[in-house]
Amino acid sequence: MTAMPQILLCAEPLTAKAFAPFGEVIETTGHTPRWINEGTCQRFDDLAHVDALEDGGKPVISIFKAQPRPLPLPIEVLERHPQSSQAFFPLEQLPFLVVVAGDGGTPLAQRVRAFRATGLQGVNYRRNTWHHALIALDRTVHFLVVDRAGPGENCEQQRIDDVRVLVTDND
Amino acid sequence: MTAMPQILLCAEPLTAKAFAPFGEVIETTGHTPRWINEGTCQRFDDLAHVDALEDGGKPVISIFKAQPRPLPLPIEVLERHPQSSQAFFPLEQLPFLVVVAGDGGTPLAQRVRAFRATGLQGVNYRRNTWHHALIALDRTVHFLVVDRAGPGENCEQQRIDDVRVLVTDND
Repeated sequence: MTAMPQILLCAEPLTAKAFAPFGEVIETTGHTPRWINEGTCQRFDDLAHVDALEDGGKPVISIFKAQPRPLPLPIEVLERHPQSSQAFFPLEQLPFLVVVAGDGGTPLAQRVRAFRATGLQGVNYRRNTWHHALIALDRTVHFLVVDRAGPGENCEQQRIDDVRVLVTDND
Repeated sequence: MTAMPQILLCAEPLTAKAFAPFGEVIETTGHTPRWINEGTCQRFDDLAHVDALEDGGKPVISIFKAQPRPLPLPIEVLERHPQSSQAFFPLEQLPFLVVVAGDGGTPLAQRVRAFRATGLQGVNYRRNTWHHALIALDRTVHFLVVDRAGPGENCEQQRIDDVRVLVTDND
């Protein structure tokens, strides 16, 4: 019996530039605000594009309560949403891991990328971006989520069963 | 010279029922989640309706950084958005005050209501709901905001200049 090949991915810092192929990082860093409300509030405007209207869909706001996952974590299934973007922002200022995969000719396992979000960052997956379920770390994390409700099947899944992909974190 | 009449409002607890005339409270309380992501996450679905498409608008996600305001706070100007809803969720789990006013035949000052949101609650103002700018309390609070970008003038303001309305909080 041959052992299954293994890839161990260590999460990279989440930056707008590194994440650009997959969507947007929702954060104040790198954005210039404008003052509103008579100088009592700064607005960091339009940090993520909500794409939820396809096939009669509508944007909705939900809360996800994600259990912590032990690391290293095997990445066995990725999903994507062919009808919408999907945005997440943590509500406890706790870090979390973001696992995505780009399009391309190589096998899926070789395209997996892992990012470490600080508790001050959210992400917005662009429509059709392959991603893993949220990975909370030490504690349960609530996320505010903006995605789509509506007709149609808005979730595709793909299993990774030829390679054991493990994600971990240096922190 | 006659003294201006004064109304002192003490913020009430924010509940879905009390806030129903103005929009939705975004919270897990009172909602039944469903399990997703192979039993590692609970989804509290569709807690707020995003209404942002009027006149060619699109929904956008922004971050507001709101300075704390001293109490009691004079309520001098309310605003409303004739083209969209506007949702806010605090990112530091800090309480804040929500000041709104209903429609009706009485003078605006008499219709003002004040609510105290816990740090685990957000609000979604329904389109055309009169509301005051966010009132952060002891510290600067960041809010994730879902509202509208697009053409048109999506902000109306109304001054309260016949009555001195003060909002405070028991906590």
